[in-house]
Amino acid sequence: MEQSRSRQQVKAIMRLRELVISGNFKPGERISELAMVDLLGISRTPVRLALGQLAYEGLLKPLSRGGFVVSDFSVDDIFDAIEIRGTLEGTAARMAAERLTDKNEIEPLRAIYEEIEEAVRYLGDEDEVFGQYVELNEQFHDELLKLAKCPMLERSLSQITALPFASPNAFVEVQVERERKFDILRNAQYQHAVLIEAIEARDGGRAFAMGQEHARLAAANLRSAMKQEDLFEKIPGAQLVRRD
Amino acid sequence: MEQSRSRQQVKAIMRLRELVISGNFKPGERISELAMVDLLGISRTPVRLALGQLAYEGLLKPLSRGGFVVSDFSVDDIFDAIEIRGTLEGTAARMAAERLTDKNEIEPLRAIYEEIEEAVRYLGDEDEVFGQYVELNEQFHDELLKLAKCPMLERSLSQITALPFASPNAFVEVQVERERKFDILRNAQYQHAVLIEAIEARDGGRAFAMGQEHARLAAANLRSAMKQEDLFEKIPGAQLVRRD
Amino acid sequence: MEQSRSRQQVKAIMRLRELVISGNFKPGERISELAMVDLLGISRTPVRLALGQLAYEGLLKPLSRGGFVVSDFSVDDIFDAIEIRGTLEGTAARMAAERLTDKNEIEPLRAIYEEIEEAVRYLGDEDEVFGQYVELNEQFHDELLKLAKCPMLERSLSQITALPFASPNAFVEVQVERERKFDILRNAQYQHAVLIEAIEARDGGRAFAMGQEHARLAAANLRSAMKQEDLFEKIPGAQLVRRD
Amino acid sequence: MEQSRSRQQVKAIMRLRELVISGNFKPGERISELAMVDLLGISRTPVRLALGQLAYEGLLKPLSRGGFVVSDFSVDDIFDAIEIRGTLEGTAARMAAERLTDKNEIEPLRAIYEEIEEAVRYLGDEDEVFGQYVELNEQFHDELLKLAKCPMLERSLSQITALPFASPNAFVEVQVERERKFDILRNAQYQHAVLIEAIEARDGGRAFAMGQEHARLAAANLRSAMKQEDLFEKIPGAQLVRRD
Repeated sequence: MEQSRSRQQVKAIMRLRELVISGNFKPGERISELAMVDLLGISRTPVRLALGQLAYEGLLKPLSRGGFVVSDFSVDDIFDAIEIRGTLEGTAARMAAERLTDKNEIEPLRAIYEEIEEAVRYLGDEDEVFGQYVELNEQFHDELLKLAKCPMLERSLSQITALPFASPNAFVEVQVERERKFDILRNAQYQHAVLIEAIEARDGGRAFAMGQEHARLAAANLRSAMKQEDLFEKIPGAQLVRRD
Repeated sequence: MEQSRSRQQVKAIMRLRELVISGNFKPGERISELAMVDLLGISRTPVRLALGQLAYEGLLKPLSRGGFVVSDFSVDDIFDAIEIRGTLEGTAARMAAERLTDKNEIEPLRAIYEEIEEAVRYLGDEDEVFGQYVELNEQFHDELLKLAKCPMLERSLSQITALPFASPNAFVEVQVERERKFDILRNAQYQHAVLIEAIEARDGGRAFAMGQEHARLAAANLRSAMKQEDLFEKIPGAQLVRRD
Repeated sequence: MEQSRSRQQVKAIMRLRELVISGNFKPGERISELAMVDLLGISRTPVRLALGQLAYEGLLKPLSRGGFVVSDFSVDDIFDAIEIRGTLEGTAARMAAERLTDKNEIEPLRAIYEEIEEAVRYLGDEDEVFGQYVELNEQFHDELLKLAKCPMLERSLSQITALPFASPNAFVEVQVERERKFDILRNAQYQHAVLIEAIEARDGGRAFAMGQEHARLAAANLRSAMKQEDLFEKIPGAQLVRRD
Repeated sequence: MEQSRSRQQVKAIMRLRELVISGNFKPGERISELAMVDLLGISRTPVRLALGQLAYEGLLKPLSRGGFVVSDFSVDDIFDAIEIRGTLEGTAARMAAERLTDKNEIEPLRAIYEEIEEAVRYLGDEDEVFGQYVELNEQFHDELLKLAKCPMLERSLSQITALPFASPNAFVEVQVERERKFDILRNAQYQHAVLIEAIEARDGGRAFAMGQEHARLAAANLRSAMKQEDLFEKIPGAQLVRRD
């Protein structure tokens, strides 16, 4: 029974998250437990815990008098979330450099790098290239975090990347011109190479700075997207952003 | 009714947190909802939400099959949590430097600094001095974070300082020799002065590095405490730490 | 007469420098004043001062008993000189960020950036592109240093870039494959863009880190050149490098 | 004969340097070779080379038409020289961290630290304490540079510390109140401890930041000295500084 409750639970969280991110509610809108029970067709307890989980992720805001409203982000919040992710990923890279005990430990990271290299150089069908990139990029970031050997950092980072627009892949596809998109991939990949080199050389200062800089590619993409409404709406979680 | 539920709620969270931090359960011990209902004499719903809140704070760990166990930290986790707090407080100091629009904005921070200066130089009754310091130090850190003008950072920082041993005041009193304790206060206060100077000069790089370094005073204290069992037990949350 | 002495002087320095850099003497070889008087056909006093100037630049080493020998560098010295140049150029970028009083001040730097952009995107005749790049790149670095408003830094930087292999352009052409050469130009140009952005945003920490990273492109080129003797010999000052 | 020329040479350099630093000439004053021959009672050639050496050190400025004038520094130049020294000493500390191959290598640095500890804690006769400190501090900085294993960095650093007001000991005694002087020594010594800890932990980023911060104690002293004419004049090389 525990088991099935848990499956119900996961379903409740995923569906509620999807509803919030896709913009089903307005930023600032009050979310009532009962309405969600009706909307999702799921019983009260898992709905309540799903609401708590989304508050933890930052998608809902708990009210001091109880209950929740949909979070309401400013454009500055997105830039800030990207900068904080960069600082934490830079810290992951620094710790990876400082805690490397054996150069072989870095091989899985290098293997992912080589796969990206192949995907990026191939210059094939755009959607295929980007699809592969997004997947491999996520693997790269996961592996980097693993090398940091720091559960406390995983915890801090998972909290910030729970915000849809702060994840490492959030901005990869938010570009309209093919040439510019490939440029950014190549840049990102060059930065991946520097990260590997710095970790291998145990140069924590360089690894930190490059980890920080790497996230700023997303900020550059966000700046482009700000100029074009149709691009802005492609950003995951854009519906939660209030634009003044 | 909402109101009273909320008061019940706050009470449930505070009592459960106190029980966990003070070591009423063993690290890794399973916490059952029903047992807590009995133990706290509070009804099921607020207990359930309190469990969720403590999981958010990192004091409990949710099990994938549902339910919670008491978190179980290693000594390395404490060092890592301090380092992450330092990185985030360094980021707060950097942002404060970058976002200062008017030099007067820094006056409240300087006023707290001056109050600490008086308390530290006075060299009076030890308990009184440390009591004042702890209070003023908390104010200093809160004001610094305010100057960063970054709700996303407040969120990340509040998550890490929710761990009892990662708060800025966790180690202030974990020293046995009077002379050494005062030395550390003076050092901390010198670092406060550098933080103010760097923010005022809008020198974000210096502010970041000093914010990071400031937290490492806590790490130095932790290292001393590791050598003396009676000191180690004074660390808030020490009961959750597994020592091998 | 002063005037003509000075012209003699400049001629003596330039010819002696050329002789040393082009490998006319062996690293470690003793350079006698009289022999230089004969070789250059210039009188004793300007020769003596030229020897002093080259010692200042690091191409000759003064002996404690008087006289000079040709300097003798290791490959590690080149890497170190590049790293020190990067640290000082990073400092220039940081100071430029901190000392910017008016956003218009950055326009000359941006104008050079735009010219490089045109040259690099044009993808025309390779020699022409690289010729232009080398010239514009030098202008970019000079303008960056000007924005730092720091005569003391100009002095430190001019001492290190006097070493032929430590100048910002030393490695631009040390690449054999056309595709790889263009990749490096594009990377360097992307870093120029970040430098401008960081200075404009008065983000000294980012400007410093990127200035440092920028020089490491030269180190990457040096590593490639180490694998191919004919490339290594293209490095300015390679004749002064002892390879074990 | 070479030998005796060299002794003459050293004497010429030392006496000329002393004359310039002690303020025998006005900043900007033209220094004629012949007048120096008369003043020092040393023959033309060693005088000429001494002039060249002082130009290298930055105390004289070569004129493009030949000849030299006494250098002329602004107060900003002193602050900048201190900041550049800090950046280079930070780099020394970083390289020491990165290039440590055996933890025993750090023992000589720690031994000097322990000697300073004794001198500072002793709180004895003020002049004696400061005399010892100045000597041990110089040893500490020399040993740090040795650990960097980087001749190129020694060269850059020796050029900047040749400026009398940029040396690590320039400001140690520029404080009038006894209590404040001891505070600064204790602070400096705490920073020495962090440098050792960071190098030992191979934490290059921390070592760099602390090396930079360490030099800023001198900047803080300079700021105090700016407020009191009699203190300002105690700064080595103060006579070369133009105050507007």
